[in-house]
Amino acid sequence: MAVYTEVPDDEMAAFVARYGIGELLAVKGIAEGVSNSNFLLHTTKAFYILTLYEERVDAVDLPFFIGLMEHLADRGLICPQPVRTLEGSAVGRLAGRPAAIVTFLDGLSVRRPNAMHCGEVGRGLALLHQAGADFTMQRVNSLSVPDWRPLAEQAGAAADTVSPGLAQRLLAEIAVHERSWPQDLPSGVIHADLFPNNVFFIKNRLSGLIDFYFACTDAFAYDLAICLNAWCFEADSSFNLTKGQALLAGYESVRPLTGAEVDALPQLCRGSALRFLLTRLVDWLNVPPGAFVKPLDPLEYDRKLAFHQRVTGASDYGLKR
Amino acid sequence: MAVYTEVPDDEMAAFVARYGIGELLAVKGIAEGVSNSNFLLHTTKAFYILTLYEERVDAVDLPFFIGLMEHLADRGLICPQPVRTLEGSAVGRLAGRPAAIVTFLDGLSVRRPNAMHCGEVGRGLALLHQAGADFTMQRVNSLSVPDWRPLAEQAGAAADTVSPGLAQRLLAEIAVHERSWPQDLPSGVIHADLFPNNVFFIKNRLSGLIDFYFACTDAFAYDLAICLNAWCFEADSSFNLTKGQALLAGYESVRPLTGAEVDALPQLCRGSALRFLLTRLVDWLNVPPGAFVKPLDPLEYDRKLAFHQRVTGASDYGLKR
Repeated sequence: MAVYTEVPDDEMAAFVARYGIGELLAVKGIAEGVSNSNFLLHTTKAFYILTLYEERVDAVDLPFFIGLMEHLADRGLICPQPVRTLEGSAVGRLAGRPAAIVTFLDGLSVRRPNAMHCGEVGRGLALLHQAGADFTMQRVNSLSVPDWRPLAEQAGAAADTVSPGLAQRLLAEIAVHERSWPQDLPSGVIHADLFPNNVFFIKNRLSGLIDFYFACTDAFAYDLAICLNAWCFEADSSFNLTKGQALLAGYESVRPLTGAEVDALPQLCRGSALRFLLTRLVDWLNVPPGAFVKPLDPLEYDRKLAFHQRVTGASDYGLKR
Repeated sequence: MAVYTEVPDDEMAAFVARYGIGELLAVKGIAEGVSNSNFLLHTTKAFYILTLYEERVDAVDLPFFIGLMEHLADRGLICPQPVRTLEGSAVGRLAGRPAAIVTFLDGLSVRRPNAMHCGEVGRGLALLHQAGADFTMQRVNSLSVPDWRPLAEQAGAAADTVSPGLAQRLLAEIAVHERSWPQDLPSGVIHADLFPNNVFFIKNRLSGLIDFYFACTDAFAYDLAICLNAWCFEADSSFNLTKGQALLAGYESVRPLTGAEVDALPQLCRGSALRFLLTRLVDWLNVPPGAFVKPLDPLEYDRKLAFHQRVTGASDYGLKR
């Protein structure tokens, strides 16, 4: 979390003048997002967030992300709403980088979600999948099965410095999914990164979703598997069945799972645990010395993966049928 | 500029509940201030800034800083206004650190001040000196003449790695001020760090002053000397006489200088250039490898010091008498 690019206030004011959002009164660099620079703007009209997209976001993906947020907001999902310039453009350039302005969204993220929060997130995820159903743009998931082996190779033998035998365990797990990844599941726009820091609550009710920069076209149930990993484990890496039940029931209150999705759930949970294990591992091994940002612990996802490997069916996650 | 301490949103909400400022709706860590952690708060009432005081601010000084901001705001000076808890306390504790909440202040800082901005700052500085006249608390300037030799010793011979001969030049300059620092000048509360990033403008009019964490009791004209250094030099370190004239005239439009202050001004300018040269030098030599924050160039103040050493009187800064 950091502001990577500094923009002088007068350049910022000139940029904001191109939007019909009043005159700039204040700017604060905000410490949010690991890969972009974010600024809070206060204008004579309202508060906004300006994002400068740094290297990690591919500029060709921006129309998808921005278009998706506009589409979802139009359908009543509470998420940041992109603002267009007076000429109608939603992506501009500032300080040599692609830049976009979105509305400021209230809400607090929870550090220790309880079952009520999990139920809200399940329901919110299903509403997102519904609202995105008629979104016509597509984006390939760039962190799915074909991308896992290259990530493991990037980590290489150094994986064993993090946990003995990890390099070999990763290759064995990847091979499982390369052989038999579930196909033809109901698909559409998924968030793909709906962790607690990307979900806002006000008084225990979900008040909004943010950070759509991993969103892509993939199986809905894979998104649900990511949420089971992100929301339903305790700090000691044990799975909390009550939270799992709440999350799945919340999801199915809006969009019931198909039989194929139920059958695929354990493998999707394994695969999504593997995906976060791999990306965290590569980040962990590539931290520059003295870096300001502490990387997330990859082994948290090694332990979650071990749980999923022992699961025998979706009922182990709390699915009631 | 950075957020050093992370505070979970739920802890933040519990802390904010102790103030009569409504319920917390949003929190953003903001990248402001080199020595403290700052957060933007949005509540059901308004926007606020929460500051957690990190090591560099001595907790015993907080009642002075907070009391000063309250005093100045009461007298109509536009600066952040401290908010007290329902029990009447202005300094609390959060995440193991002293913490205070102040009102959110609109305004933009200018990167390249023009003469109009300098005039506004001169006037604003005099209004600050006037508004602080009946503030009863005192705080010794901890970065004045007696503190300069220890700073030079902290840098030691390493100063010469920044500029050949610098270590010797520093000691010679310090000796000058130790022998003959101006005494008995009109004194009171000074800001002591009124750089462009601490002054807000809206449409070229000064709209507020921030960051009172170097404020102390010292000679008013020393504060003016700091501003001449901070506002009236060009990027090539040449002094801009038009800006100096504007700043001094702005100041005197509110509070005319005494004869003793006019006579002392060249030495006060030398001394304040030396003060920033020394602290920047020590910071420069103590940057941890890979640090996120790039230190400010100490040699900028070496060049400014060289200008002041050639000055023969206050008219060289644009003072008209």
